[in-house]
Amino acid sequence: MTDPADRTPYAAQVSLRWSDMDAYAHINNVQFLRLLEDARVIAFRDWFDAGGATDRSLLEEGVLVSRHEIEYRRPLGFRHEPVEIQLWVSRVGGAGFDVAYIVTDPEGVGDGPGGTIYAVAETELALYDFRTAMPRRMRPDERASVLEHVGGAAPFRRRRR
Amino acid sequence: MTDPADRTPYAAQVSLRWSDMDAYAHINNVQFLRLLEDARVIAFRDWFDAGGATDRSLLEEGVLVSRHEIEYRRPLGFRHEPVEIQLWVSRVGGAGFDVAYIVTDPEGVGDGPGGTIYAVAETELALYDFRTAMPRRMRPDERASVLEHVGGAAPFRRRRR
Amino acid sequence: MTDPADRTPYAAQVSLRWSDMDAYAHINNVQFLRLLEDARVIAFRDWFDAGGATDRSLLEEGVLVSRHEIEYRRPLGFRHEPVEIQLWVSRVGGAGFDVAYIVTDPEGVGDGPGGTIYAVAETELALYDFRTAMPRRMRPDERASVLEHVGGAAPFRRRRR
Amino acid sequence: MTDPADRTPYAAQVSLRWSDMDAYAHINNVQFLRLLEDARVIAFRDWFDAGGATDRSLLEEGVLVSRHEIEYRRPLGFRHEPVEIQLWVSRVGGAGFDVAYIVTDPEGVGDGPGGTIYAVAETELALYDFRTAMPRRMRPDERASVLEHVGGAAPFRRRRR
Repeated sequence: MTDPADRTPYAAQVSLRWSDMDAYAHINNVQFLRLLEDARVIAFRDWFDAGGATDRSLLEEGVLVSRHEIEYRRPLGFRHEPVEIQLWVSRVGGAGFDVAYIVTDPEGVGDGPGGTIYAVAETELALYDFRTAMPRRMRPDERASVLEHVGGAAPFRRRRR
Repeated sequence: MTDPADRTPYAAQVSLRWSDMDAYAHINNVQFLRLLEDARVIAFRDWFDAGGATDRSLLEEGVLVSRHEIEYRRPLGFRHEPVEIQLWVSRVGGAGFDVAYIVTDPEGVGDGPGGTIYAVAETELALYDFRTAMPRRMRPDERASVLEHVGGAAPFRRRRR
Repeated sequence: MTDPADRTPYAAQVSLRWSDMDAYAHINNVQFLRLLEDARVIAFRDWFDAGGATDRSLLEEGVLVSRHEIEYRRPLGFRHEPVEIQLWVSRVGGAGFDVAYIVTDPEGVGDGPGGTIYAVAETELALYDFRTAMPRRMRPDERASVLEHVGGAAPFRRRRR
Repeated sequence: MTDPADRTPYAAQVSLRWSDMDAYAHINNVQFLRLLEDARVIAFRDWFDAGGATDRSLLEEGVLVSRHEIEYRRPLGFRHEPVEIQLWVSRVGGAGFDVAYIVTDPEGVGDGPGGTIYAVAETELALYDFRTAMPRRMRPDERASVLEHVGGAAPFRRRRR
């Protein structure tokens, strides 16, 4: 497995909706979490559904969000071009894992090399079996897929983990 | 100007969000109108914004929705591929115009040649000047753009206009 | 049964959310349909769930929206007080019925006696059996409840039915 | 000023929408943040708008969300009764403050005295002047109102601040 520091994070291109803007004419803070959800849906289809014929990955059907944390850096306005959401795994447990994200615009000039950072976030996911309505452990194939996407901590400014 | 019957309608590719589904696990009826809104935003950028540098067409900034009508034909589930929304102008007035739409999936097998029809709809738009907060007349350049996209009536089953 | 012309329509008090406003700082046209959905949920709990212990009426679980039509009269801004949505049955069929609505603010001064009218709308509902995934006929008890709320046509300005 | 430990937190009654549920038939994790937004709108009208004639408090017009953190404890289904969201100030700075929340159902049996806890959350708010588009300091009257609602840290299980 490659060193996390050498990996380019998986990047999902997520479309904005004009209606994601609120009365302040910027993408609303709550709608950012919709964009993160879209990024997970796109990513999990690739990470976990090798060869799958369904539109929803197996993991998507058996994970619950147990926690979100998001730091808003810059306001984002509606535009026709998608935003790029880089995401990776920042923690692996026996019964779940964390996904870290950067919501970015690689063509802009901003907070760091490569573009404007609109938000940094992290979601804690717990595996679940919907048939039995009980938490479950990660399967070996799921764990292998998760480990493929491990990276460092989410680059929050204000929190130390 | 070509005969409306010979024109291929403008088609917008509109992405779905997993969250567009409701507790019945289908794209919610109200969310269909979000998809129509996305189609108008995409279309008006092309129809009215020749050479424009902004993300929102001039017409988008000065139109209000005065009426919607929508007929739901088949349930639509979330999938990663966009739906195709064909749209054209079904009525031209002095101070507004109507847009007709078919929400379709050209690769499916369904109600007619070319694919499954999920919904047929029509929106009545009234031109408006946001600076003066008053209705306004269509400008000649706007009218010329609108006339480029004229087609027949929206193919509703249940309504006669 | 009383003469429809003598009945006071059922009125649902529906709360607005600040986020129902869009970038034009008014309640977005699509969000009006969310308010109509809330009004149906409130009304059907009373109309069909006499003595029921569930939060969702039996009819709510077996109806699909087959059509919406809505006419927007005046812009609505966010406020803490709910809007009043009057609703009644405008058509009764064997396998479904139509609901007509007026979205209003009874304390305002407006289009007619009693208050400002923000929108007039109508929804066509088709009964459905989710277990068999097939359309179904209205049961006698459902029909009796529906008939209790019959009124005239939805007062659209621009359409004749 | 009373000792924070003696104060009963401000409680906002927040209505749910049927459409807050997603395809898993529970209130969607992102929609919880809409409920928190509604709670802030309700609370700030009381906390900051003593005698104000507007529907939006002065503070609401000049605050931005810079960070959210939320921990989901139990799934919440749609019901007609509102949820109770207790909220208080967990940090006071010169140019902003944090709001902590518990989303709860006081009539249920659950995680602690008083009812089921669905979620615990915290929002970091930064004061802003929309006219100048610049951050601003808290005014003395705003600070006094904020101090009236100070309480302890948000009771997260998984994070230490």
